[in-house]
Amino acid sequence: MTSKRVLRMGMVGGGRDAFIGMVHRTAACLDGEVEFVAGALSSSPEKARASGEDLGLSDDRNYGTWQEMVAGESALEASDRVDFVSIVTPNDSHFEIAKAFVEAGISVVCDKPLVHSSEQANALIAAVEKHDVVFAVTYNYSGYPLIKEARRLVRDGELGEIRKVVVEYNQGWLSTKLEESGQKQADWRTDPARSGVGGAIGDIGSHAEQLVSYVTELGLDSICADLTTFVDGRLLDDDANVLLRFKNGAKGLLYVSQICVGNENDLRLRVWGTKGGIEWHQEDPNRLKFQPADEPERILRRGNAYLGDDAARATRIPAGHPEAFLEAFANVYNGACAAIRAGAGAKGGAEYDYPDVYHGARGVHFIEKTVESARADAKWIDAHWSAN
Amino acid sequence: MTSKRVLRMGMVGGGRDAFIGMVHRTAACLDGEVEFVAGALSSSPEKARASGEDLGLSDDRNYGTWQEMVAGESALEASDRVDFVSIVTPNDSHFEIAKAFVEAGISVVCDKPLVHSSEQANALIAAVEKHDVVFAVTYNYSGYPLIKEARRLVRDGELGEIRKVVVEYNQGWLSTKLEESGQKQADWRTDPARSGVGGAIGDIGSHAEQLVSYVTELGLDSICADLTTFVDGRLLDDDANVLLRFKNGAKGLLYVSQICVGNENDLRLRVWGTKGGIEWHQEDPNRLKFQPADEPERILRRGNAYLGDDAARATRIPAGHPEAFLEAFANVYNGACAAIRAGAGAKGGAEYDYPDVYHGARGVHFIEKTVESARADAKWIDAHWSAN
Amino acid sequence: MTSKRVLRMGMVGGGRDAFIGMVHRTAACLDGEVEFVAGALSSSPEKARASGEDLGLSDDRNYGTWQEMVAGESALEASDRVDFVSIVTPNDSHFEIAKAFVEAGISVVCDKPLVHSSEQANALIAAVEKHDVVFAVTYNYSGYPLIKEARRLVRDGELGEIRKVVVEYNQGWLSTKLEESGQKQADWRTDPARSGVGGAIGDIGSHAEQLVSYVTELGLDSICADLTTFVDGRLLDDDANVLLRFKNGAKGLLYVSQICVGNENDLRLRVWGTKGGIEWHQEDPNRLKFQPADEPERILRRGNAYLGDDAARATRIPAGHPEAFLEAFANVYNGACAAIRAGAGAKGGAEYDYPDVYHGARGVHFIEKTVESARADAKWIDAHWSAN
Amino acid sequence: MTSKRVLRMGMVGGGRDAFIGMVHRTAACLDGEVEFVAGALSSSPEKARASGEDLGLSDDRNYGTWQEMVAGESALEASDRVDFVSIVTPNDSHFEIAKAFVEAGISVVCDKPLVHSSEQANALIAAVEKHDVVFAVTYNYSGYPLIKEARRLVRDGELGEIRKVVVEYNQGWLSTKLEESGQKQADWRTDPARSGVGGAIGDIGSHAEQLVSYVTELGLDSICADLTTFVDGRLLDDDANVLLRFKNGAKGLLYVSQICVGNENDLRLRVWGTKGGIEWHQEDPNRLKFQPADEPERILRRGNAYLGDDAARATRIPAGHPEAFLEAFANVYNGACAAIRAGAGAKGGAEYDYPDVYHGARGVHFIEKTVESARADAKWIDAHWSAN
Repeated sequence: MTSKRVLRMGMVGGGRDAFIGMVHRTAACLDGEVEFVAGALSSSPEKARASGEDLGLSDDRNYGTWQEMVAGESALEASDRVDFVSIVTPNDSHFEIAKAFVEAGISVVCDKPLVHSSEQANALIAAVEKHDVVFAVTYNYSGYPLIKEARRLVRDGELGEIRKVVVEYNQGWLSTKLEESGQKQADWRTDPARSGVGGAIGDIGSHAEQLVSYVTELGLDSICADLTTFVDGRLLDDDANVLLRFKNGAKGLLYVSQICVGNENDLRLRVWGTKGGIEWHQEDPNRLKFQPADEPERILRRGNAYLGDDAARATRIPAGHPEAFLEAFANVYNGACAAIRAGAGAKGGAEYDYPDVYHGARGVHFIEKTVESARADAKWIDAHWSAN
Repeated sequence: MTSKRVLRMGMVGGGRDAFIGMVHRTAACLDGEVEFVAGALSSSPEKARASGEDLGLSDDRNYGTWQEMVAGESALEASDRVDFVSIVTPNDSHFEIAKAFVEAGISVVCDKPLVHSSEQANALIAAVEKHDVVFAVTYNYSGYPLIKEARRLVRDGELGEIRKVVVEYNQGWLSTKLEESGQKQADWRTDPARSGVGGAIGDIGSHAEQLVSYVTELGLDSICADLTTFVDGRLLDDDANVLLRFKNGAKGLLYVSQICVGNENDLRLRVWGTKGGIEWHQEDPNRLKFQPADEPERILRRGNAYLGDDAARATRIPAGHPEAFLEAFANVYNGACAAIRAGAGAKGGAEYDYPDVYHGARGVHFIEKTVESARADAKWIDAHWSAN
Repeated sequence: MTSKRVLRMGMVGGGRDAFIGMVHRTAACLDGEVEFVAGALSSSPEKARASGEDLGLSDDRNYGTWQEMVAGESALEASDRVDFVSIVTPNDSHFEIAKAFVEAGISVVCDKPLVHSSEQANALIAAVEKHDVVFAVTYNYSGYPLIKEARRLVRDGELGEIRKVVVEYNQGWLSTKLEESGQKQADWRTDPARSGVGGAIGDIGSHAEQLVSYVTELGLDSICADLTTFVDGRLLDDDANVLLRFKNGAKGLLYVSQICVGNENDLRLRVWGTKGGIEWHQEDPNRLKFQPADEPERILRRGNAYLGDDAARATRIPAGHPEAFLEAFANVYNGACAAIRAGAGAKGGAEYDYPDVYHGARGVHFIEKTVESARADAKWIDAHWSAN
Repeated sequence: MTSKRVLRMGMVGGGRDAFIGMVHRTAACLDGEVEFVAGALSSSPEKARASGEDLGLSDDRNYGTWQEMVAGESALEASDRVDFVSIVTPNDSHFEIAKAFVEAGISVVCDKPLVHSSEQANALIAAVEKHDVVFAVTYNYSGYPLIKEARRLVRDGELGEIRKVVVEYNQGWLSTKLEESGQKQADWRTDPARSGVGGAIGDIGSHAEQLVSYVTELGLDSICADLTTFVDGRLLDDDANVLLRFKNGAKGLLYVSQICVGNENDLRLRVWGTKGGIEWHQEDPNRLKFQPADEPERILRRGNAYLGDDAARATRIPAGHPEAFLEAFANVYNGACAAIRAGAGAKGGAEYDYPDVYHGARGVHFIEKTVESARADAKWIDAHWSAN
C-alpha cells in the first residue's frame, strides 16, 4: 500500500497447520509491499503442494522441495525471480537451505535460532559475504517500536553507563510432557535432532539474548548457566538460569523457562545505568517505563511525538490504537526489504535496522556457550563473541 | 492465506495521507483473503488517480470518482466485479455513496457513524433489504476477541441480570484548536457539514454506544445528555456526559471526550450484573477482567482454551503474543466477507458476527437523541430504537 | 512518639464489634501523640462499659451514655478533660452528640456524613463558631499524601484551567440484601432513620464529593442525579449516577454504587485541565498519575523529594514502603490535633489541613440536593453551596 | 484496643532521627496491645536520654546504656519488668545486646540480619533455648497477609511440587555514594564494621531469602553468588545475583540491588510448581496473583472470605481499604507478643507465626555463604543449613 517496489517473496516450510508460516506471511505482506509468489511449503512434497494450492500459489512456483525451488527460481529472469526467500523450517534444516539460496544469490529471511553450530554460522556468514545478499534473522521482538526507543535512550546516554541488565522470558506451555500428545510445536522443539543442543535456552533464550544485545549493544564477557530439564523424559532443557558478566563491567541475569505454569509469552527486559532505568514487557508492548534518577517515573507510549526516529519509523497507527506482535514481526521484514530494495547486501543490518546474519551467529554462539557451561555443572566460561 | 475464495475489494476515499484508508486496506487484506482491486480514492479525481497508482491499482479500475466506479464496476462481469466496496470518506457522503453501491447490488463495508440522520439510515436499510446485499459498519472495537468473550459471559448468564453499565471513551487530541492547524482529521471531524450533528459524541460516542449494545444486548429506554464544547470557537461538542436508562431497568453512564489531555484512545467498558462484573480496556485488549461474586477476580486472556467459540474464532495467534487494533478491525471485515461468500445478504450480521446496517442505524439514532437531549439543556428524552 | 503534647481523646460509639471504632482509635493513636482516655462506646450502657473495659478505660471515665460523658468530662479540670471527642455513632445521632460536646467547649472529630440536614449542619456551624472549638469531619480519603499532591498540582496551575472531573466510588458489598442477615454495617446504612435520606450517595457519595472539592477547590453550579435502589425491598438508594456542572464551566461525573459485584472500595478520581490530567486510585494509593500535555505520563510516588510540602508532611515512611488507609485516616486526626494544640478554633481547617465543619455541611447539602434531584426524576437543580 | 494483656516493651537503639525505631514502636503499639515503657535509645547516653524524654519515658526507665537497662529491668518485679525488648541498633551490636537480655530472661524482638556470624547465631540459639524466652527477628515482609496466603497455597499443594523460585529485591537509593553525604542509613549500611560481611546481600538479600523460605519451606542445597560493588570506593557489595538450587530439585534466582536507579523497595516473589504459579509484589501488597494451570489467572485480594485462616488473622480492615508496611510489621510483633502471653518460649515461632531465632540464624548462614561463594569468584558452594 505504497509506491515502493513490491517485492516477491518465497517461502520454505510453513505449510498447512504451521502456525509460524502464517505469521511470517502475514507479517511480510502486512503493508502491501511484499507479494507471496513461490514456495516449498513442507518437507513432504504432497503436503507442500497442497499447502501452496491453499494459498493460491501458481502451479509452476508451487514446488515440492526446496531444492526444486532453488533450481526453479534460479532459472527465472531476475525480474520474475523471488527477491527473497523466507525459511521457516525446523532449525536443523536452516543451514543447508539458507546456504543454497544464498549461493543462488537470493536474499534470505531465516527463522531463529539461525543454525546448530558456530561452525555452520561462520560458513553461512562467509557465503552471505561472498554473494553479498541481504540476510535477516527474525528476532521479531526487536521489531517493537518501544524496543527501538529503549535502544535510543541507551545510545543517547539517558541511562548513563549501564550497570545491570535483567532479561527474562517465561512460558508455561511445556510444563507437562506435551510432546507426547503429538502437538507439533512441542514435538520438534524438544527434539535435539531438530532443535539443536538447546531447548528453552535455544528457542526463547536466543530471543532474550538478542533483545539485550539489541538494546544495550554490550558484549558479553562470561556466563554461568544452570540448565534444567524438569519434565521427566524430556531430552532438552526446559528451564535456564544464567548469570551474565559484560565486557564493560555490567552484570546481569538471563532466565527463561517453559515450565512456568500459566505464563504465556512473558518476555521482559530491564536495564539500569548510572542515570536511569528502563523496563519493557512484551505482553504490554505499547508502553516503556523510563525512570530517570530523582524524577518521577515516565511511561513512554508508542505513537507519540516525544519518541525518537527509530520508534516513529516502526509505527503504523496512532497512539492509543495498540499495535502488537504482527506489526513488530513485520518491522523485521520491512527492514530487510528496505535493504533489498536498496541493494544493501550482506552489511545492511545496521542501516536498515534488522537483525542480520551476524546477530544470528552471535545467538548460536550464546546457545553453545550456555550449554557448555551447564554441562560443566554451571561453571563460569568465557562468552566473548566477535564476527570471525 | 487460505483456501477460502479471495474476495475483490474496492474502496471509496482513503487516498494519499488518509490514515484510515490504510487501516481499512490492511485490515481487510490481513489474512490474505481479500484483494484490493479498484478504487475512487479521493474526492479530487487527480488525487484519486495518483493514490491508486501508489497502491498499484490497474488504470482501468483506478477511478476518478465514485460515480465512475459504480458505473465501471457494474459494467464488469460478476466474476470480475468487486465483491464489496469499502467506504471511508467523511460521514456526509456515506449515504449517497453507500446507497449507490447497494442499488448496484454491491455489498458495502462503511465507516461509522453510518449517515447523518435516521431518515437516511432508514432509507439505506430499505435499499439494503431490497437488494439483499451484505452491509457492514466498521464498529471495529467489537471485533476484539475479548469483547466477544464479554458478550458470551453476558449471554451465558455469568453476570446474572445486568444492573449497571459504564462505558467511557476519553481522548485528548482535540484539547486545543487543532482544526486551525490544517490537521486533516481534526478539520473534518469538527465540521458539522461533514461530521453531522455530533462531534465527540458522533465520532467516538457512537463506538461507545455500539460496544455497550454489542456486549449487553440491552436496549435503551431513555437518556440525559450533557454535551459541551470546551475549545473556543469549535462548532461541535468535544465532550459528552450521558446518563443511560435501559429497558430492563439497568442504569448506566456513557461519557466520551476529546479534551482529556494525555488520553489517547482510552475506551473502557464495565458491566455489572447480579452475579458478577466485567471490565475491559481497549488499550490493553488482550485481557478481560471477570469478577464473579464472592470469588477471586479472574483475568481472562486472549488465546486460551477456556474462552468461548466466538473469541476463539476471532483469534489468530497464540496467547501471550499480543494482538491488537488491526486484528480486531480485520475481524469485522472477515465477518462481512464470510457473509458475502455465503450469500447471506442483508440479514447476515448476527450469524456472521459483524456490525450491520441496523447497528449503524441504531448508532445514528443514538447520536441524534443525545444531541436532542443536550439542546434541551440536558433533558431526559426517550431513546428507544427499533429497526423500522 | 514525639515531643508534641499528647492529647487526651474520648470516643462516643465504636464499642465491641464496631469496626470503625477500632479504625478511629488506631488512626488517632498511630503516631503516639494521642491517648485514649474516655468513652461512651455504645448506645447500650452495658455494652458501652464492657467495651470500655476491653479497651482498658478507667472505670470513672468509662461512661454508660454520652450524656454522662459530657457531664463527667465537663466536671474535670481542663488539664484532665479530654482534648477532643471522636464521634463514630450512626449518622442520626451525630447532630445531638456533636452539638452537646461543642457546647461543652470540647473539640470534636466526627464521622461523615456530618448530620441529616442542612438545617442541622448550619446549627452546628453556629455552635462551633460560638464556642470556637476545633471540629473535624473524617473525610479520610483526603488524608492520602498523593491527594494532597493532586491538590498542589491544581493549585500550582500544572493542570491549567480545570475542564473535566470524573469521580467514582464503586463497591459491591450490598449487591444482595445483606441487611437481612443481621450484618451490622449493612443494617444501619440501609436504614433511613439512622443513615438519613441518602444510601450509597450518603455513605460513599459524600466521600466522592469531598475528594473532588478538596482537590479541585471548584464549587458546584448544578447537578442532575439518577439514584436507584437495585435490591428489592431496600429502603435507600444503592446506586447513583450524577452529572455535575461547576461554577467555572467545568463538567463532571460522580457515580457511586454498592451493587458493583466484586468491587471493594474502588474510589477513583480523574481531573483534566487545559494543560494536563491526573488520576488517582484509592486501592493503589501510593501512586498518582500525572499527564502533562505532549509529554510522557509521569507516575508520582509517595515519599519522593519531587513532591510538594503537603504530601511530604503527610508521609511517615520512605518511598516504596507502602502506606495506606490507616495512615491517611491518621493524617486527618493529626491535622485536627495540630489545630487543637495551636488553639486554632473553628477556623483552623485550612491552615492545619483537615476537613472541617464547613466541609461537613457542604457534604450534607450535596446529599440533600442529589436526593432532591433524583426525587424529581433526575431533574437538573441548583447545587450552589456557601457557608451560611 | 483489646482485652489481651497489654505487654510492656523496651527498646535499645531507635532514638532521635532513627527512622527504624519509629517504625518498630508504631508497629508494636499499632493495636493497642503493647505499651512502650523503657529504653536505651542511643549509644550516646545523652542522646539516649533526650530521645527517651521526647517519647515520654519515665526518668527511671530512660536508660543511658543498654547495660544499665538490663540491670535496671532485671531489678524490677516481674509484674513491672518489660515483657520484651526490641533491639534496633546497627547489626554489629545485636549479638551482645540480645544475648544479655536473653540471659536476663527477657524476650527479644531483634532487627535483621540477626548477627554477624553463624558462630554468634549458634551461641544465641543456645542462650535462647537455655533461658527459653521468645525471640523474634523482624523479617517484616513475611507479616503481609497475602504472603501468608501464598504459604498456604504451597502447603495445601495448590501449586503442586515446586520447581522454580524467583525472588528479587531492587532498590536504587545507593546508586551514588550516598554514604559520603553523612546520610545515616547509608553510612552504617555500607560499613563492614557495623553491617557485617554483606552489603545489599545482607541488608535486603536476607529479607529475600527469608521470604522464599517462609513461603516455600524449601531448604537450599547449593548456591552460586556473583556480588558486585558498583559504586567506586564502597566497601561492601551493592548488587548481588545468586543462582539457587534447592534440596527438592527446584531451581531459583535471588537477586538484589541497591543501584537500580529509581527502584524504591521493589521486593517481588514468584514461585511455580507443577500445578500453578504465584506472584506477589511488596509495593502492591494487597493483591496476590495465583495462576492455576489451564485456568484464568486469579487475583486474590486481602480481606476476602476466600482466603485462608493465616491471612485472615493477619488482617485488620476490610478488603479494598488497603493495608501496608506498618500493618505487616505489626503482625510480626503481634505473633511474638502472642507467644509471650502464652509463655511459648524458644520454640513458639511456628505456632505463633513469627520469624524466630532459627530463621535469623539461617539468614546469617545464607549471607555468609553468598559472600563465600562470591569471594571464590562466584563458585557453586554447599548452602545446606540446619539448626545446630
